[in-house]
Amino acid sequence: MQDVNLGLYFLSELVGTAMLLLLGGGVVANVILKGTKGNGGGALMINWGWGLAVFAGVLVSAYSGAQLNPAVSIGLLIAGKITFTHFLVAIAAQLVGAFLGAVLCWLAYKDHFDAEPDPATKLGVFSTGPAIRSYGWNLITEIIGTFVLVFVIFAFADYGDVQIGVPGGLGPLTAVPVALLVVGIGASLGGPTGYAINPARDLGPRIAHAILPIKGKGSSDWSYSWVPVVGPLIGGALAALASPILLHLASV
Amino acid sequence: MQDVNLGLYFLSELVGTAMLLLLGGGVVANVILKGTKGNGGGALMINWGWGLAVFAGVLVSAYSGAQLNPAVSIGLLIAGKITFTHFLVAIAAQLVGAFLGAVLCWLAYKDHFDAEPDPATKLGVFSTGPAIRSYGWNLITEIIGTFVLVFVIFAFADYGDVQIGVPGGLGPLTAVPVALLVVGIGASLGGPTGYAINPARDLGPRIAHAILPIKGKGSSDWSYSWVPVVGPLIGGALAALASPILLHLASV
Amino acid sequence: MQDVNLGLYFLSELVGTAMLLLLGGGVVANVILKGTKGNGGGALMINWGWGLAVFAGVLVSAYSGAQLNPAVSIGLLIAGKITFTHFLVAIAAQLVGAFLGAVLCWLAYKDHFDAEPDPATKLGVFSTGPAIRSYGWNLITEIIGTFVLVFVIFAFADYGDVQIGVPGGLGPLTAVPVALLVVGIGASLGGPTGYAINPARDLGPRIAHAILPIKGKGSSDWSYSWVPVVGPLIGGALAALASPILLHLASV
Amino acid sequence: MQDVNLGLYFLSELVGTAMLLLLGGGVVANVILKGTKGNGGGALMINWGWGLAVFAGVLVSAYSGAQLNPAVSIGLLIAGKITFTHFLVAIAAQLVGAFLGAVLCWLAYKDHFDAEPDPATKLGVFSTGPAIRSYGWNLITEIIGTFVLVFVIFAFADYGDVQIGVPGGLGPLTAVPVALLVVGIGASLGGPTGYAINPARDLGPRIAHAILPIKGKGSSDWSYSWVPVVGPLIGGALAALASPILLHLASV
Repeated sequence: MQDVNLGLYFLSELVGTAMLLLLGGGVVANVILKGTKGNGGGALMINWGWGLAVFAGVLVSAYSGAQLNPAVSIGLLIAGKITFTHFLVAIAAQLVGAFLGAVLCWLAYKDHFDAEPDPATKLGVFSTGPAIRSYGWNLITEIIGTFVLVFVIFAFADYGDVQIGVPGGLGPLTAVPVALLVVGIGASLGGPTGYAINPARDLGPRIAHAILPIKGKGSSDWSYSWVPVVGPLIGGALAALASPILLHLASV
Repeated sequence: MQDVNLGLYFLSELVGTAMLLLLGGGVVANVILKGTKGNGGGALMINWGWGLAVFAGVLVSAYSGAQLNPAVSIGLLIAGKITFTHFLVAIAAQLVGAFLGAVLCWLAYKDHFDAEPDPATKLGVFSTGPAIRSYGWNLITEIIGTFVLVFVIFAFADYGDVQIGVPGGLGPLTAVPVALLVVGIGASLGGPTGYAINPARDLGPRIAHAILPIKGKGSSDWSYSWVPVVGPLIGGALAALASPILLHLASV
Repeated sequence: MQDVNLGLYFLSELVGTAMLLLLGGGVVANVILKGTKGNGGGALMINWGWGLAVFAGVLVSAYSGAQLNPAVSIGLLIAGKITFTHFLVAIAAQLVGAFLGAVLCWLAYKDHFDAEPDPATKLGVFSTGPAIRSYGWNLITEIIGTFVLVFVIFAFADYGDVQIGVPGGLGPLTAVPVALLVVGIGASLGGPTGYAINPARDLGPRIAHAILPIKGKGSSDWSYSWVPVVGPLIGGALAALASPILLHLASV
Repeated sequence: MQDVNLGLYFLSELVGTAMLLLLGGGVVANVILKGTKGNGGGALMINWGWGLAVFAGVLVSAYSGAQLNPAVSIGLLIAGKITFTHFLVAIAAQLVGAFLGAVLCWLAYKDHFDAEPDPATKLGVFSTGPAIRSYGWNLITEIIGTFVLVFVIFAFADYGDVQIGVPGGLGPLTAVPVALLVVGIGASLGGPTGYAINPARDLGPRIAHAILPIKGKGSSDWSYSWVPVVGPLIGGALAALASPILLHLASV
C-alpha cells in the first residue's frame, strides 16, 4: 500500500461512491417520484438497483480497492489492511463522492423532483429514514445489516478471486458476488430502516438535500441522521473484530 | 477430513446457518410484516432473498464445506463424504445456528413484529406452513423439493469448481450457482408448503418462536412441525441414493 | 461421440428434461393455481423460474451434453455435431423425461390442482397456449423464439467455456449464461404464445395432461399442439443453417 | 484491427444489434401491448429484458467486438481503439440491424399490435419517449445514462476478462457483467426518458415504425427523435474523454 498515490486513491473512492449514489439514488427516484416510467416498480426493483449500483461503483474504483463505504474502511483499518491515513482519505472521498452522486441523481430526475408534491418522498431519494421511528431498534437494525455486509466481504478474503481494499483487486465478474450480497441484504434487512449500511451513502446525500435548491423540499430530518452513521460504523467494526474468530481464515 | 478441528467445524456450520436464517427470515419479515418498506414485495422477492441468504451463508462457512442443512448432511453421510461424527456435529450446529439466526431476525424486525396484529403472520417469518393442510401431500412436496436441491448439488461434484461438503471448497463466484438453484426451487416448488427443504431451517426457528417473548404471538403449530423435518431428510437421502445411478458420475 | 453409452445417453437426457419440466411446470403452477404461496407472482417470476429450470436440467444431464430440447438436437444434427441415432435417442428421452417431469409437478401441486376450478388454468401448467389464437402468427413467434435460443447457444461454441451437446461440457458456472438466455427469451418473446421453444417441453406434458386423472380437467387442446412442435423444429433448424454464415465461427 | 474483414465486421454489428432490438423491443411489447402473457409485468421485467437483450446481442457479435451502439463506437474512436472507417461501418450496421430487429419484433407480436388500441403504446415498443417532455432535461438524463454505460464499459478494460471492441473478446460468462450493467442503468436512470442510451436503438426502430404498415399507428414523434441520438453521443464521448483521468488505467 505504501506506493499508492494518495491523490488517485482519493479520486478513485470519490468516483466510485459518486457512481454508487447516482445509480442508487436513481433507482429510488425511479420507483417513488411522481410520473417516472418505473413508478411503483416495487421493493425488489430497488434492491436490484442498489446492488447493481454497488456493482458499477466497484468497477470504477479499482485503484483504491473499491471500499465505497466508511463501514468497510473502518473494518479494513481494524484488520490492519489500510493505514489510518488511507482510512481518513477514503472516508473524505466517500463523503464528497456521495454528495456529488446525489447531485447528479437530482439533475437526472429534475423534472420529476419538480413534479413530486410530497417533501418526504423527495428526501427519500437522498437519504434513508425509518419505517417506524425508534432510534434504539433502528440502530440495531443498521448494526446487524452492516455487520452482514462487512462480515461476508471479509469472508471473500478467504478466496483468491475477490479482494476488497486491494488496489485493482476486483474485476467485472468478481464484482458480481458483491452486487448479489447487497441485493440480498436489501431484500432481507432493508425493511425497517431502508438499509443505509453506509454512513457516506446517507450523510453525503443528506447534505446535498439540505444545500440544493430542490423545489418544495421539506426537512432533511437531521434528528435521524446519526443512526445511519453510527450504526454502520459499529456494525463494520464488529464484523472486523469477529472475522478472525468466526471465519478462522488462517485455518482454511 | 480427519484433520478437521471439530470445534471450528461446529462453529462454521453454526455461523453459516445463523446467516442463512437471519437473511432468510428477514426477507419474509420484510415482505409480510406490517409497515416494512418491502411490505407486499411479492413471491419473487422472497425467492431471491432466500437464494441470496444461502449465498451469504455458504460464503461464511467455508471451513465445514457449507452444508447448512441436515438434508445435505444426510446425503453426504450416505455418499460416504462425511463420517457419522461429522454428521452429528453438523446437524447440532445447524440447529443452534438456525435458532440464533431467527433470534437476530426478530431483533432486526422488533418494531414490526410488535406492530403486526396477526399471529400466523408472525409465525410465518420463523417457520413454514402449508398453503393447504394435507400432511401426506405436503410431505411429498417437501420430499420432491429437497430431492431436487440435493440431487443438483451432487451434480456439482461432477465439476471441479463447486464442492459442497469439502472444507474451503466454495468461493464467492462458485457460490452463485447454489444461490440460483435455491431461487429456482423456491419459485417452482415453494407454492404448496413454502419450501422448508431443510429441517434445521424450520425446526430451529420454530423453537425460537416458542421460546422468545414475541408480543401477541400465537401457536407455534407443532402439529405440522414434523413434515419439514421428515420430508427433507427423506428427499436428501433419496437424492444421495439416486445420484450414482442417475448422474453416473464415474462415466463422465 | 462414438464411445458414448447410448443407455446412459438416454438416461441423461431423460433426467435433465424431467428436471426441466418439474421446475418449469412448477413455477407456472405456483403463479397461476389457486391458493399457492406464489399466486399472482407475475410474469417475471415465471421467466426466472423457467430459466432456472433449464439451469438445473443442464446441470444433471452432463453426460449427453444437456440438449433437453429437440430443437437444439435438430440443430446439432444439422451442424454435424451428433449422429442421426443420437438425435433419435435424444428426442425419445426428452419426450419421456418431459412426461415424467410433468407428472412429478402434478404430484407436488396435487392439492392445488384439486382446488383450482378453471380447466384452462390446469392445462396451462402442462402446456403452452396462444394469448390470441392465430396459428400462422403463433407459428412465426415460436420460430423466432427458438431461432434466438439455438442461434445464441451456437454462438457459445465460439468460446471454450460453454459447450452444449458435448458430454460433460457444462459446469455450474457455465450453465448460468444458458439460464439467463432463457430468462431473456421468456421475458422478450413469451408474450404471444408462452414460449414453448421446445417440442418435448410442450408435447410430453400435454400427453401427461391427457392421461393423468386430474380432477375437473378439460380439453388438452390438441388442435394447437402442432404449433409448439413444428415451430421450434423450424426455428432450431434455421438457426443451425444460419450460424455458419451469421456467426462466421471460423474467422474469429 | 487491420486484418479485420469489413464485410464480416458489418455483418457482426448488424446481427448483434438486430438481436438487441428483437429482444429489447420484445420485452416492452410483452409488458405493454394488449393481451400478452406478460402484460403489466412491470418496470423490473423491462429492465431485465433489455439487459438480457444486450447479453444475447453481445454473444452473437463477437467478430466486431460487440459494440452495438454508436455511443460505444464513438467512445472507442475517441480512445483510439477503432479507426474512423470502422466507426462508420459499425454505426451503419447498427442502424440497419436495429431497423431489422424492430421489424422482427413487430412480426413476433403482430396480433398484439393489431389488438392494441393506443397508438402511443405501439410507438413505445419501437422507440423511447420522455415521461415529462422537456428537451433540455431529457437530454441531460440521456447524457448521464450513456456516460455511465460507456464509462463502466471502459473500466472493464482494466481487467483482462471483458473487452468491448476487441474481436472475439467476450465470452458467455464475461457478457454477464455487461448485461447486469444495463439492467442497473435501466432501473436507476430509465425513469425520465426510458433510457435509449444508444442512438441506433432509438432511431432504427423509429424509422421502422414510420415505414411499417402497422395497423392504427400514430405519429413517430420525430420532434423528440434527436434527443436519444444527440444525448448518447455526447455521453459516450464524455466518458471516453474522462476515462483516462478518472479511471487512471495506466497506474493500476
